[in-house]
Amino acid sequence: MENLALSSYLDANKDRILATLLEWLRVPSISADPAHAPDVRASAELCASYLRAGGFERVEILGTGTPEDRGAPAVYAEWLGAGPGAPTVLIYGHHDVQPVDPLEQWTSPPFQPVVSGDRVFARGASDDKGQVLMQIEAARGMLSTRGALPVNLKFLVEGEEESGSPHFEHLLESQKARFSADVVVSSDSTMEAPEIPTTTVGCRGLVAFDIELRTAPVDLHSGIWGGTVPNAALYAARLAAALHDEHWRVAVPGFYDDVRELSANEAAALAALPFDEQKFCRQAGVKFLVGEEGRTPRERTSTRPTAEVVGIHAGYGGPAMKTIVPATANLKVAMRLVPDQQPAKVAEAFRLWLESQLPAGVERTVTLHGGVLPMVTPLGHPALKCLSRAMEKVWGVAPLYQRSGGSGPEEALARVLEAPVVSLGIALPEDRFHAPNEALSLPQLWRGILAAGELLVEMASLGAKQ
Amino acid sequence: MENLALSSYLDANKDRILATLLEWLRVPSISADPAHAPDVRASAELCASYLRAGGFERVEILGTGTPEDRGAPAVYAEWLGAGPGAPTVLIYGHHDVQPVDPLEQWTSPPFQPVVSGDRVFARGASDDKGQVLMQIEAARGMLSTRGALPVNLKFLVEGEEESGSPHFEHLLESQKARFSADVVVSSDSTMEAPEIPTTTVGCRGLVAFDIELRTAPVDLHSGIWGGTVPNAALYAARLAAALHDEHWRVAVPGFYDDVRELSANEAAALAALPFDEQKFCRQAGVKFLVGEEGRTPRERTSTRPTAEVVGIHAGYGGPAMKTIVPATANLKVAMRLVPDQQPAKVAEAFRLWLESQLPAGVERTVTLHGGVLPMVTPLGHPALKCLSRAMEKVWGVAPLYQRSGGSGPEEALARVLEAPVVSLGIALPEDRFHAPNEALSLPQLWRGILAAGELLVEMASLGAKQ
Repeated sequence: MENLALSSYLDANKDRILATLLEWLRVPSISADPAHAPDVRASAELCASYLRAGGFERVEILGTGTPEDRGAPAVYAEWLGAGPGAPTVLIYGHHDVQPVDPLEQWTSPPFQPVVSGDRVFARGASDDKGQVLMQIEAARGMLSTRGALPVNLKFLVEGEEESGSPHFEHLLESQKARFSADVVVSSDSTMEAPEIPTTTVGCRGLVAFDIELRTAPVDLHSGIWGGTVPNAALYAARLAAALHDEHWRVAVPGFYDDVRELSANEAAALAALPFDEQKFCRQAGVKFLVGEEGRTPRERTSTRPTAEVVGIHAGYGGPAMKTIVPATANLKVAMRLVPDQQPAKVAEAFRLWLESQLPAGVERTVTLHGGVLPMVTPLGHPALKCLSRAMEKVWGVAPLYQRSGGSGPEEALARVLEAPVVSLGIALPEDRFHAPNEALSLPQLWRGILAAGELLVEMASLGAKQ
Repeated sequence: MENLALSSYLDANKDRILATLLEWLRVPSISADPAHAPDVRASAELCASYLRAGGFERVEILGTGTPEDRGAPAVYAEWLGAGPGAPTVLIYGHHDVQPVDPLEQWTSPPFQPVVSGDRVFARGASDDKGQVLMQIEAARGMLSTRGALPVNLKFLVEGEEESGSPHFEHLLESQKARFSADVVVSSDSTMEAPEIPTTTVGCRGLVAFDIELRTAPVDLHSGIWGGTVPNAALYAARLAAALHDEHWRVAVPGFYDDVRELSANEAAALAALPFDEQKFCRQAGVKFLVGEEGRTPRERTSTRPTAEVVGIHAGYGGPAMKTIVPATANLKVAMRLVPDQQPAKVAEAFRLWLESQLPAGVERTVTLHGGVLPMVTPLGHPALKCLSRAMEKVWGVAPLYQRSGGSGPEEALARVLEAPVVSLGIALPEDRFHAPNEALSLPQLWRGILAAGELLVEMASLGAKQ
């Protein structure tokens, strides 16, 4: 390992790093809840203070959005001491956290972090404060022990990722030159297991539909009208039920038209990932699996497109019973997309399908959400090779390549900044992203700091943009 | 018309009767809302005072339910001066009213009655205070003009009909001897049109199902698990979509087994009722009709059994979008039953069907609601002939026979008291039962008072129970 200095730094600083993490985790920076806006602000300020303490020169809290539609603050920092000949790396992460519901399932309060064994329990521990701090401390360690970094380094730590990054692309576009980088490193993902390092090389796109149906001005009495008037709840249910065919393929005509099959390399990388169906079911808490016939669960969750019913709400939902024929219904459907599907084209196919399913007298409004493109980093990309070597130095084996089934801001980073995105994610599946009792493994954090340092060393070999 | 005295009484008392009605309508006796319990009580007290003023002897407010599960008060009154040789008639109605939502659609406040032209607008105007007062004033008029009634008369005015009469059968059972009658007259229904008198000769049964599905302990992230884990919302939607076949028949095997086809008389009575599909659609506010193929809308709403999706709720229903796979779903289905369907047998068929539709790994709980038997009064019954003659005297033509698609307490009255139930209902379809701007037609009220008097005269010819 080249980076012995960082290892010594770590030995001397673990207590301080842990204390810093716990301090940050005490701030309930829930971006989805407007009541927590001051906490999101406080979280940004703490993040900025950590970057300043780490030796970064231009640390700034960036407002996002527009005067009409304010977003949550992001944090920016840079160290450009490696000079114009060296490549520039932009680290991406986020300092906001998911809501905590259902609160009663937490063993300890979500914003009173508890260290138990080698794990830290708190909302945001792994998603994503722990992983952002990992990057900050790697840079701080290298700056304090070597006096310099091998590359120019920028940090962009978002405050709205858990709300779907609504203003992130606008932020990137509006200050594109400032964020310009040769490569983006995202630290907001998981690896397979502590001894099976993996790295995320792509994520799916997203397009979602909010469908309102109406069959009458008001709910109708089922004793008077039932059996002969259209029922909005029934039409919503029929839409949802018609979404997949008997082979669990999405039944929208044209949906699969632009799906690119995996290359031989990609297929081999996917097949190399371990999969234990019993463990997978246990982790999800489900008793059986479903999904597109002829595809493995791994494919179905990462390299195949899907359509999920996110919600369906119509009629009476309270205790006991009412005798009504519901007049309105809401159906929400979210589709995950893979290369080369285009959100706009899929949305058009969905609209046509919807029209074909509903009788003329059912009023319908379809609102589009999302519109995120899928993204894949080519497996042969030099930046990915740097990442692979860095992780191998720490974990002893090269990481396997996985694709995320989710849809993050990575696609916007790659597209707007015209840079490859690689992921150094050290969270584990058992860290319970978005769920009660979210945790972070401290051994993973320490390894992650070393790997983040190794990654900067490796990336020094990449050329700078002309 | 035999009952000229009642006509003169009416001429002299219309102002007082209208003032009484307006007084009663000012009391917001919404039984479904616990906050209105004092108003329901006040309404019962007013009703009792009207009966006392009408000349009834034993007027009492009856508590309902049990000490553990209190119900709203009913009002009982009797006049038994016709003696043991004369038949006893029990008048049924209710003094509670529906909730007023959506309040913004009311032209005037629901509990500040407005008289406009020959109509009174207020919640409860026709359903059912107006129709109860019609019966009280008919008896009062006869007692004041003739000094006696031709039959023994009992009143039972319920306070929970709009909440599904949860304690009514218990009340009937617990004081069966007190309520004993040779015939029951219900005044809680509508007629076709002012010049097309109709009477309701039956109502449908009811059995309803509250279905909870669970596929995982918590909602799952669709980016991580979507496309491969079971989705509770989808299974609920599939159940709802599978409820009817392509001919809009209920797809539950055995559902129609015990459905008795109409007799020739019943079919002729049903066919005699006018039906204007455009008007029907306009009144419901729907653009088209659906329902069991080969059956008319009249049949589908009254003499054929149905299954309706009352509600479906699963997953995210708020603004914008969440990317989850819902872990739980609630589906409510209500079935209207006709002779000779049995709620318990239909419920068992539904459970078997449900089991056949759901994979083993989907947890399900089914809670049964309702369990009301269908009821039909035979068209040749002497009590129905009395009702027909009484209405013919006032409207000039004999009433047509209609069957209610709803499920009221009439079945319990017929079963527990072992007496036929006939209906003198003078409300009109445009009176907007359960809807904003509920109204009562005053000409219908005056005619109804005369008809209620004629009915008592006619019923004197019925024998008394041995």
